[in-house]
Amino acid sequence: MKAEIISTGTELLLGKTLNTSVFYLTGQLSGMGIEVIYHHTVGDNKERLLLAVNQALSRSQLVILTGGLGPTADDLTKEVIALVLGLKMDFDRKSMANIEKFYAHESDLPPGSENQAFFPKGAKILPNDVGTAPGALMEKDGKYCLILPGPPSEMEPMFERYVIPELNTIMNNVKERMYVRVLKVFGLGESELEQELPDLMQWEEPFLTLLDKHTHMDVRISIRSSDQDLAWQKINETESLIRQRLGSKVFGVDEETHSRVVGNLLRSYKLTLATAESCTGGLLGERITAEAGSSDYYLGGVISYANSAKEKLLGVSKTSLLEEGAVSAKVAGQMAEGARRALGADLALATTGIAGPGGGTPQKPVGLVYIGLAHPRGTKVEKFQFAGHRDSIRNMTVETALNMLREFLLIYK
Amino acid sequence: MKAEIISTGTELLLGKTLNTSVFYLTGQLSGMGIEVIYHHTVGDNKERLLLAVNQALSRSQLVILTGGLGPTADDLTKEVIALVLGLKMDFDRKSMANIEKFYAHESDLPPGSENQAFFPKGAKILPNDVGTAPGALMEKDGKYCLILPGPPSEMEPMFERYVIPELNTIMNNVKERMYVRVLKVFGLGESELEQELPDLMQWEEPFLTLLDKHTHMDVRISIRSSDQDLAWQKINETESLIRQRLGSKVFGVDEETHSRVVGNLLRSYKLTLATAESCTGGLLGERITAEAGSSDYYLGGVISYANSAKEKLLGVSKTSLLEEGAVSAKVAGQMAEGARRALGADLALATTGIAGPGGGTPQKPVGLVYIGLAHPRGTKVEKFQFAGHRDSIRNMTVETALNMLREFLLIYK
Repeated sequence: MKAEIISTGTELLLGKTLNTSVFYLTGQLSGMGIEVIYHHTVGDNKERLLLAVNQALSRSQLVILTGGLGPTADDLTKEVIALVLGLKMDFDRKSMANIEKFYAHESDLPPGSENQAFFPKGAKILPNDVGTAPGALMEKDGKYCLILPGPPSEMEPMFERYVIPELNTIMNNVKERMYVRVLKVFGLGESELEQELPDLMQWEEPFLTLLDKHTHMDVRISIRSSDQDLAWQKINETESLIRQRLGSKVFGVDEETHSRVVGNLLRSYKLTLATAESCTGGLLGERITAEAGSSDYYLGGVISYANSAKEKLLGVSKTSLLEEGAVSAKVAGQMAEGARRALGADLALATTGIAGPGGGTPQKPVGLVYIGLAHPRGTKVEKFQFAGHRDSIRNMTVETALNMLREFLLIYK
Repeated sequence: MKAEIISTGTELLLGKTLNTSVFYLTGQLSGMGIEVIYHHTVGDNKERLLLAVNQALSRSQLVILTGGLGPTADDLTKEVIALVLGLKMDFDRKSMANIEKFYAHESDLPPGSENQAFFPKGAKILPNDVGTAPGALMEKDGKYCLILPGPPSEMEPMFERYVIPELNTIMNNVKERMYVRVLKVFGLGESELEQELPDLMQWEEPFLTLLDKHTHMDVRISIRSSDQDLAWQKINETESLIRQRLGSKVFGVDEETHSRVVGNLLRSYKLTLATAESCTGGLLGERITAEAGSSDYYLGGVISYANSAKEKLLGVSKTSLLEEGAVSAKVAGQMAEGARRALGADLALATTGIAGPGGGTPQKPVGLVYIGLAHPRGTKVEKFQFAGHRDSIRNMTVETALNMLREFLLIYK
């Protein structure tokens, strides 16, 4: 089955919004064995949108549109689809009730809200569990139009919950499917992975793809097959082979994040964690607490941005700060120990470094980072030199800190 | 001048590569006053690429193609452009010499390398300083085709060094340019803004666009004009009119972020800030310290995720925690006061709430958040009910906290 994706919204044509939705959708569809042959991005312009939809429908069986489902006049998607498919617009009471529920705590509905409850007649309506704009699936003469909300935070849950089952039903008539597993690898780059897996990289089945995710690498194992059991068996065998070679550098599978993996280890060992952050300024805590249920193991932390905070809240010695500087192995260690003590945690991670763009010196250049890990048997500090700008350095620091903790926990028992 | 961007390459249609080139190019072109009206992504398919180029040339003066300049057979871009423009292919000795130089340390050139030195006749060749595939600019009947290499690491330096001067020359002959200013608005939704600015929304010149950025709205004022001074004058007048209506709800202009605006206010008032975070888990500190130079005003904070941390590090009273609960106005106030005291700051922001998905009750549902602001003259606490999932709630909490502080600082003196 061939598909095309049409992203609408003038903001995408201003270079201010990175189109991650099309990336997400393409990945999902490829994973289901649906071949995406074209992406279009159109502004909120009726004529160009009409042309794009007609063109897409003329060569593909599935056309997915994102965005343009808001309450205002420049939200054109449903109107255009109705026009192309020759359908009237119909009011959906259930969607309206959901919209009213969403705004239950407001005195009035925003003007135009009722527009969001109108759909081309006969459309299968896909509920929006996190917003007000439902999606819809329409079929005509064996061609499918799927309309989805623009914000990824609304589109992605809708896709996973309501669209995948619909597409599976449509795809049930298709014998061959694509099966995919992703292994997440920390601490090896693309060329190092190619060196570790030269033979596997030559395979046609399963097929290996390496994707640079900035702070880690994804190793994607995919296979197209009409036999589900055989496909997963081959993927399992390939995964084992890769794990034999890469060992603990594989930190997760598919949607697992580093912080979730670390969190699960902490929970299973019944250990608590604290943080002390300087250069990351809260990003480490943020990443840890992005996981629901992190209160099971994370007690909290100190963002000791100023030296005074390092002294007052973490008990870092003034002498160390003066003699070694805030960015030093000694201070990283004292920060970790201080956080462990102050929060009464079993373990503590600390970060101190120069995130830039300013503040670097020949002795302590931008990107120099110390990470400390305090545990019941002592304190470990490692020194790193990261490349890139402020954002990358802070992100690499957080991922490296989580990795240090993960590697520590793996040999803890 | 209108432009379209055509990205080629099957890898973009597998969901394996996020198309950052189109984002980069669109931003660059918008900044130069070139209006991008369409993005296409096409696989390495001659027929579809031909159609895309023809369509783009029929409605836009500038068509930019990225990718497909490699040595192999599926690299079709130059061939297709030559076909569309009715040009023969011509061998460029200088490009060949560069390719040979690039591979000087190898015993042989990769097969097909000479293909990279062929260009449609009459093309202006754009050198590739970091790779082997040069770009090219072609003109016919006042329409321009620009071809650029696919890898961002090659495309971006080529664009900045060789393309911008060419486009500037072209644009010098174009009288009309696009002038744009974006006002960032907090606390009003799309439909509320339409109610506040109903007359301005009807204007053709300048033209207003509303963009929902989840935690705030962008109001984009744009004007197409051949007179730069007049254009900016009209934009300035429109900005004043909007500011009269929306007052302090306008928090920034163009690329300004909430945290940068708040940071600049703190710096100019010589005030220091501390944070105490529960539900945001470090995100508030992260956002504040994302700004380089934030150490001028930000001392640090406490991530008091567990109740024990609230007591130990912030001095929140056990009684308040037991009687009112961690998510309460009283605890938010005590957290802010505790952070202000512990870090010795002039001001402190505190967040406590239920980010979900679990942990909600009928009395304290998911999305309930208290934000505290402690200052030299007292403490202010506000209660909020945010919608959406964990991520949205945490983001809205941080932006709302920054907004509370900004509104406070605006009337501080």
